[in-house]
Amino acid sequence: MAYAAASPEVELIGITGTYGNVQMALGVENSIALLDLLDLKDVPVFKGLPHAKTKDSFEVQEISAFIHGKNGLGEIELPRSEREAADQSAVDFIVESARKYGQDLYIVPVGPMTNIAAAIEKDPEAMKNVGKVVLMGGALTVPGNVNEFSEANISQDPESADELFRADLPVTMVGLDVTTRTLLTYEETQKWRDLGTESGKFFADMTDYYIKAYETTSPHLGGCALHDPLAVAAAIQPDFLQTLHLNMKVDTEGAGRGRTIGDETRINEADPIVQVGVNVAVDEFVDEFMTRLTALFKKH
Amino acid sequence: MAYAAASPEVELIGITGTYGNVQMALGVENSIALLDLLDLKDVPVFKGLPHAKTKDSFEVQEISAFIHGKNGLGEIELPRSEREAADQSAVDFIVESARKYGQDLYIVPVGPMTNIAAAIEKDPEAMKNVGKVVLMGGALTVPGNVNEFSEANISQDPESADELFRADLPVTMVGLDVTTRTLLTYEETQKWRDLGTESGKFFADMTDYYIKAYETTSPHLGGCALHDPLAVAAAIQPDFLQTLHLNMKVDTEGAGRGRTIGDETRINEADPIVQVGVNVAVDEFVDEFMTRLTALFKKH
Repeated sequence: MAYAAASPEVELIGITGTYGNVQMALGVENSIALLDLLDLKDVPVFKGLPHAKTKDSFEVQEISAFIHGKNGLGEIELPRSEREAADQSAVDFIVESARKYGQDLYIVPVGPMTNIAAAIEKDPEAMKNVGKVVLMGGALTVPGNVNEFSEANISQDPESADELFRADLPVTMVGLDVTTRTLLTYEETQKWRDLGTESGKFFADMTDYYIKAYETTSPHLGGCALHDPLAVAAAIQPDFLQTLHLNMKVDTEGAGRGRTIGDETRINEADPIVQVGVNVAVDEFVDEFMTRLTALFKKH
Repeated sequence: MAYAAASPEVELIGITGTYGNVQMALGVENSIALLDLLDLKDVPVFKGLPHAKTKDSFEVQEISAFIHGKNGLGEIELPRSEREAADQSAVDFIVESARKYGQDLYIVPVGPMTNIAAAIEKDPEAMKNVGKVVLMGGALTVPGNVNEFSEANISQDPESADELFRADLPVTMVGLDVTTRTLLTYEETQKWRDLGTESGKFFADMTDYYIKAYETTSPHLGGCALHDPLAVAAAIQPDFLQTLHLNMKVDTEGAGRGRTIGDETRINEADPIVQVGVNVAVDEFVDEFMTRLTALFKKH
């Protein structure tokens, strides 16, 4: 969210809430509070679907609370806003925006793909016409992080992710293949804290909680992965990524449930529309990330 | 073997037998008979290890016989040669050749990696100094063919393949990612048959058996995969392949046993020495394959 807010190339037209690290309702509250902190009080936040397509409820996993805090913000308190979520649903907002903006609409799902799959079901033709869907999720060339096969965002709702990959949309997958190469350390967060601003302090403290969790969950990395910011950056500056064009699917059965993998039955179809990030210009991205976010946090 | 024999850029200095589609001893016999058919009576054939590193025997699977025939040659009879296998073992021949030829030695394992792992254990330093190891096996961006995770050659001996990937050798993996894109049909084999030569007829008939098996096992492909020839070609003409540089491992435990995947603990090490083929110049390779093999079969 902060990377998009810090990018002059894009207009942030809305945040569509989802479940995953916290319940959807709390995610929406957090989003509103974060937007307010960054003085983006005009950006609407929409309530999304509260659970996976094939389930009827969602429960936060212990590991999510460990990584992101029970409040989803690394246990850092953020003043609640008086603003409320929009009346329109996230799914309707996505469909309406697809119809209205077409090629100019970029969608960056950084949680489960439930809302976007529902939007595709509602108006597949309008959705095919969006500019890009750049999703954070999946793992093609490396193991998953929920288990050896499955990455967290895809794992929450494999059926919806599979639907997205098969829907003939211009999807770019930004998965663990690339996000676990772009790391942040306490050294960078200290620069934000040193700004002496409210947002600088908040983002530094929240990210430190996340870096600390990585010391337990992924000690080999030596920092926290910039999962979601890399997806936003790849939407704006695609040259950060090296991608493979490949028809993708999500395994929905057996031990591999939630695995993102090439579809062997469509391997010889010409010109796959889906791209998968397989390499990333690490230093260029992390520099740009720090430049943009530090400038943003300096102001608020 | 035929692609190497048909390539003026290389000297075929030996065939190292292995188990897999048939027992090792039968594979060695077949290799000698094939070399004789192509008038390569000076190329020695070496007996390899008869089973996987972690096992004490090997049994041919029914599916192997279905795909390659019980005799490993699509049930086509080939006159047995009077030649015998060399006295030296395949493992010793690999080690000796690594010491003797160094950078000029290219090794192209197209079966289980048992022999080459044993050679690495015997003389890791000499083996690090070979020019290239271009293996046929594995699947990084697509599912396996033994099961959804594992490809046949790797599946036979995951421990040996894992050892090869971790041994700091200049390995290129030519897996299902690329080999299932390069297909042969009855149309091409008919061209060999039309040559009216013994080798043309033999290779056409043997390959037709294989194409027929693919109609059952992989009907979506519309031909048989040129697995092993592509590995040989990639060793000689690397430009046929687009590769990813990635530190690889083989899963040896659980449901994913035999899966080839990037090693998440070494994802941020600089300059990985292992390359994985992720795309292939299909028409260029298949044209070259037909040009070279048709010229070879015309002579014998």
